[in-house]
Amino acid sequence: MNPELSITRLSTSNLSISRRTRATPFTSRVEAAGVQAYTIYNHTLLAANFRGMEDDYWHLCEHVQVWDVSAEKQVAISGPDAYRLIQMMTPRDLSKARIGRCFYVPLCNPEGGIVNDPIAIKLTETDWWLSIADTDVMLWAQGLAIGFNLDVSVTEPDVWPIAVQGPKAEELMARVFGEGVRDIKFFQIKPMSYQGVEMQVARSGWSKQGGFEIYVDNASLAGPLWDEFFAKGKDLNVGPGCPNGIERVESGLLSLGNDMDYTTTPFECGLGQYVDLDADIESLSLPALRQHVPAKKLMGLVINQTCTISQTDVFLEDQWAGEITSQAPSPKYGVHLAFALCSLPTLGDSLTVDVHTSLGKLQGQLTSLPFNFEALGLTPQPAAD
Amino acid sequence: MNPELSITRLSTSNLSISRRTRATPFTSRVEAAGVQAYTIYNHTLLAANFRGMEDDYWHLCEHVQVWDVSAEKQVAISGPDAYRLIQMMTPRDLSKARIGRCFYVPLCNPEGGIVNDPIAIKLTETDWWLSIADTDVMLWAQGLAIGFNLDVSVTEPDVWPIAVQGPKAEELMARVFGEGVRDIKFFQIKPMSYQGVEMQVARSGWSKQGGFEIYVDNASLAGPLWDEFFAKGKDLNVGPGCPNGIERVESGLLSLGNDMDYTTTPFECGLGQYVDLDADIESLSLPALRQHVPAKKLMGLVINQTCTISQTDVFLEDQWAGEITSQAPSPKYGVHLAFALCSLPTLGDSLTVDVHTSLGKLQGQLTSLPFNFEALGLTPQPAAD
Repeated sequence: MNPELSITRLSTSNLSISRRTRATPFTSRVEAAGVQAYTIYNHTLLAANFRGMEDDYWHLCEHVQVWDVSAEKQVAISGPDAYRLIQMMTPRDLSKARIGRCFYVPLCNPEGGIVNDPIAIKLTETDWWLSIADTDVMLWAQGLAIGFNLDVSVTEPDVWPIAVQGPKAEELMARVFGEGVRDIKFFQIKPMSYQGVEMQVARSGWSKQGGFEIYVDNASLAGPLWDEFFAKGKDLNVGPGCPNGIERVESGLLSLGNDMDYTTTPFECGLGQYVDLDADIESLSLPALRQHVPAKKLMGLVINQTCTISQTDVFLEDQWAGEITSQAPSPKYGVHLAFALCSLPTLGDSLTVDVHTSLGKLQGQLTSLPFNFEALGLTPQPAAD
Repeated sequence: MNPELSITRLSTSNLSISRRTRATPFTSRVEAAGVQAYTIYNHTLLAANFRGMEDDYWHLCEHVQVWDVSAEKQVAISGPDAYRLIQMMTPRDLSKARIGRCFYVPLCNPEGGIVNDPIAIKLTETDWWLSIADTDVMLWAQGLAIGFNLDVSVTEPDVWPIAVQGPKAEELMARVFGEGVRDIKFFQIKPMSYQGVEMQVARSGWSKQGGFEIYVDNASLAGPLWDEFFAKGKDLNVGPGCPNGIERVESGLLSLGNDMDYTTTPFECGLGQYVDLDADIESLSLPALRQHVPAKKLMGLVINQTCTISQTDVFLEDQWAGEITSQAPSPKYGVHLAFALCSLPTLGDSLTVDVHTSLGKLQGQLTSLPFNFEALGLTPQPAAD
């Protein structure tokens, strides 16, 4: 543990923007909608805050938001060997995948470490998209395709996804794309028409509040589509939004680079259900994952107080026991939540650990993920107005 | 040309920082030194501004700066096939490379497009580092190594480079590492001792003001080393710094993601001298580059006025002629400079194009890169105090 690296000292600064940190066809709308901060994700601007994290959170939980998630780049894999290449990259069995479906797939290297955790979308028998988190999956896929001499093309096409998220998302989508969107099931994708142009529309998104993602591949329609969501959603209290740190931690959604990376296997971060150990498939990581003994475990952490964790190390009776990877207040439950990557040998479930916070050393309870608030004895509270 | 994407509308905003946007062992010093803005580079915080761009520029040109360039990640390639893998990735002939030398190498895909433009460092016959620009080269190299079944390891070790740049860099380095550093030639690398620990030290850096890069691989020495540069450099007017947009444009240094990417070949952005077309080497891109007909050309652009370019498109008699990829004021020459990726068929050297600026439509002169200020009739002016 390097103390210099273990301290989450910063949360915001100024961002210098250049052509390298790519803008999107929605950026002018995002700016006009009052974005307060960005992050950089896949070399692209991704909004991080509009009204303040907590107000963004409540609005997402109660209404409907439009998110520019262009930073969620598509790696398009096409050709006779497309399935073979994708199967090499993931230990999840995709041999029986149906066209028009989405699959959350950890991509793992031959040591079992997580390279990315995209949504794999099967568009045709020979055309897949990987809707990726923040690493250059295209380069890995291209390297594999060249080395194995596969009959595929691997590209990053001009596709800029926009997400519509929140409990009123279906109603807003129906007003813009027609009633047919109501028939799209969770993790199903269908081409839908907008201004006479077909776009892929999936029921998916990086929140647990419900919603859709539209894969806009025509930049000139991006602005009009954004504007139409706002014009037709006034009575639904539509607003701009972005992946929200509070909602994702409460919902137990993992973030590549925060909660897992090359040094973490799916079994160590609660993604074991996406590894088909017994499948008869050609997957680069399966041999290692079949032998794998997890050395750590990503767990939930609950502090029964409103605070901020000021040091990433957590301790069990003065012994180092793990590190915080993400944290957020939970306004709904009146507690502070975190994910902690814990050393397995010393730790079980329901243990109490010491955490350094803005209020000094406090105790936190470890729990399995996703959080089971009822089992934790926590009752949701409505927004304070 | 998508108008939404062609406008350089933003230059700064707020940055949301998380564990994913990695801090470095120098971050506490960078913060204490008064950093004003960051960018994200290889998933890592990279300072972008300390005193304001122009004051940073003059300080760099006149004194000595210490830069945290940890974002310049090392891809370590080790094993019997290390040279073979690196040679596959670049069209520059490295077959006669000597140990202890650095080589600027475009990495190119089988279409000839630029994947990255690292410094390749030959540490031993079987150990190389690629000191990379902002794409995940590790993933590409790993994909190739797996696919071609090469006998190599490809990792991203814990190395955090720090740069000492500016005309007084050699004097400051000698005070900290001893007189031996003066013997290190340009693009040579040598292990040097600091507090009894050996670190690789190269005469290199992302400026044309001279200086060194130290590849710190022991995080606990990072802070002490930073502090010692400041303690021993007071009379040299040492200060914190970072790659400076003005200096790099004036010096004609290209930036991956700004001035070139997968869609650009080395011949299109002035890096043709790093392509050994006639070499008898196993390089993935050489077959394509031998057939390649450039479709565009990166050129310099000079506007004889202080302004800001407000739209990336440039025009020749109302015809679209190219796009601006980088721009900066040149306080030393009293002009505004830019790089423009121009359509070849219509353009030659010394042409005048129309550019949209903060002062309205202005004329700019195209010129070859790097800028030859003398040939342009421009005389350097000292800093205004």
